[in-house]
Amino acid sequence: MKIETKIKSFSSPLYLESGRILEPYEIAYETYGEPNEDKSNVILVCHALSGSHHAAGMYDGDRKEGWWDSLIGDGKAVDTREYFVICANVLGSCFGSTGPMSENYPSNIPYRLQFPVVTVKDMVRAQMQLLSALGIYHVRAVIGGSMGGMQALQFAVDYPNFSDDIISLAATYETRPWTISFNKVAIEAIRRDPRFKNGNYDKDDFREDGLDGLAIGRIAGHISYLSPHSMDQKFSKNYVGTDGLFELFGRYEVERYMEYNTSNFSKIFDPLSYLYIVKAINTFSLERGYDSLFDALLRIKSAVHLISFRSDYLFFPDEMEYIHKVMQSNGQSSFYTEIDSDYGHDAFLIEIDKFDDLIREILA
Amino acid sequence: MKIETKIKSFSSPLYLESGRILEPYEIAYETYGEPNEDKSNVILVCHALSGSHHAAGMYDGDRKEGWWDSLIGDGKAVDTREYFVICANVLGSCFGSTGPMSENYPSNIPYRLQFPVVTVKDMVRAQMQLLSALGIYHVRAVIGGSMGGMQALQFAVDYPNFSDDIISLAATYETRPWTISFNKVAIEAIRRDPRFKNGNYDKDDFREDGLDGLAIGRIAGHISYLSPHSMDQKFSKNYVGTDGLFELFGRYEVERYMEYNTSNFSKIFDPLSYLYIVKAINTFSLERGYDSLFDALLRIKSAVHLISFRSDYLFFPDEMEYIHKVMQSNGQSSFYTEIDSDYGHDAFLIEIDKFDDLIREILA
Repeated sequence: MKIETKIKSFSSPLYLESGRILEPYEIAYETYGEPNEDKSNVILVCHALSGSHHAAGMYDGDRKEGWWDSLIGDGKAVDTREYFVICANVLGSCFGSTGPMSENYPSNIPYRLQFPVVTVKDMVRAQMQLLSALGIYHVRAVIGGSMGGMQALQFAVDYPNFSDDIISLAATYETRPWTISFNKVAIEAIRRDPRFKNGNYDKDDFREDGLDGLAIGRIAGHISYLSPHSMDQKFSKNYVGTDGLFELFGRYEVERYMEYNTSNFSKIFDPLSYLYIVKAINTFSLERGYDSLFDALLRIKSAVHLISFRSDYLFFPDEMEYIHKVMQSNGQSSFYTEIDSDYGHDAFLIEIDKFDDLIREILA
Repeated sequence: MKIETKIKSFSSPLYLESGRILEPYEIAYETYGEPNEDKSNVILVCHALSGSHHAAGMYDGDRKEGWWDSLIGDGKAVDTREYFVICANVLGSCFGSTGPMSENYPSNIPYRLQFPVVTVKDMVRAQMQLLSALGIYHVRAVIGGSMGGMQALQFAVDYPNFSDDIISLAATYETRPWTISFNKVAIEAIRRDPRFKNGNYDKDDFREDGLDGLAIGRIAGHISYLSPHSMDQKFSKNYVGTDGLFELFGRYEVERYMEYNTSNFSKIFDPLSYLYIVKAINTFSLERGYDSLFDALLRIKSAVHLISFRSDYLFFPDEMEYIHKVMQSNGQSSFYTEIDSDYGHDAFLIEIDKFDDLIREILA
């Protein structure tokens, strides 16, 4: 499945939760499959912190599939022979939608720290604008994991009539201090990096190797995406230093993994986008804008499917279960599944075979 | 209880596990209480990564007690009316014992990265030298938490006839990849800090505010010392930003806590010492030097008391329980207690009332 990124430009204002207005703005997105006549076969997929709208298929000449390619495609759980699948890049990102390095109209100067704070609610609102522009007012399902799962839940609360089913994986009802402190490592590492220059960086300063602060912050991220057990399985205690164990900077395999993954990431991801998206995650709370979490959840009319992973050390299963308990006590349509996995938070990206059938059932 | 640091200088060589030799070297230490006639009332206390030999009492003019003052003192669980308590600063530290910023004899230039890697085994060996010099060849107990608990266990394995009881809290049989990756944040943040200058830093460059890299790494440390639940209890999701929720760098209470604690720490702790001690923690393995962990543990003749904390997210209870299971299956004298605490790894410093009685019983 070869695909292409499309960009939708909006000249109408986007009213943000902060009270600020984004105008104009653009949303990058991809689609897989074809819409049916009455556009009743739409599935919206939402991406996570480090993801993009490139959820499935492959670009021409590329060698790597989108991040949920095992789930989305012809004959797969999200079957593109049957469904028209849309995935949009979130506001604030660096992959095509308007973000801090976009031009601050009418100047041609990037916003940088002048970019307004965006929230998960804003990301969802922007996607609603995109869908309206495409003539889509109702979808079969919204699916996402981690920050994508937050968006799915936010759709459920803010737009009760929008989707038949909401499938949220590895998410929560609000980001807790534990997760905020992992993000804090990234915030401080980026801010204190001299080459960050308070947001006024010159990308040529770190084009080759990425911003150190982002790579360092990303190590903390990677810890939270894994689990003690998954690290034991993946790395054991293998030492890969070349000059023996007693070399100060000799590395264990887990350290080499962290270096490799984080330095690659810092080469492709923009530090300001990282700060803005992390802020959206930190401020995520389904309760905000309503009298209470209870009231927020009470609005939901979709069937909500909550999928957590036993070894998730970032958003713990009991956070998802809590949503389920509240909805159940309200007699709402809620389904909770805790999947036995050793892969930690990343299971939503890796262990697709463990929830593939479940998603088929929900969509059947 | 007012106390003073003493320094013991050694001109004899210390043979390190790496094969390198440290000569001369110094060990800083403190003592509490008085030795009895045959010196049969000695208790050795071992400190953790960020600790020092200042375990109890108060320096003249100071306002803060040593790190285990609630446990050690007249009438306390480690009763200084009865016991002669010794706590020594570990090799590699920056609080008085020989470390990377000590002069590399015969030059008067600091070792910096020329300092040899030291291990927990080496730290223990240095303490044995100190005790010999004080005419002490046998102790009533060795007690420590975290890296101090590692030392206690290393004493048990390497010197089977040295101590009647070994009390190890919040430790493990070997440092696992999960913990190594938290340390990795600190290693990378320090190394990549431009002011670190590959170890050739000028302290005046960051005397006022501490090295950023150390503060950033320390945030990761603090995460691992707490737990999701303890953070919920301690901080809830309080927002303390002064300009409202939609300010990019507005902070939650947990973020303020991290900033405050880590910047204070980076002002008093030396970055090279941090790297060396973290290396000692990473390389900790009771097995090393023996055919297997089983063989290492089989050497133990002391009664071993393993105390873990249910919410410890750095060294998980099952790591301590594993030691107990092996020892039990060998018919050795081993006792395992898992304490119900919400304070995470830090419980060994904070929730002393939860193991105070247990330590009294052991020493009775």
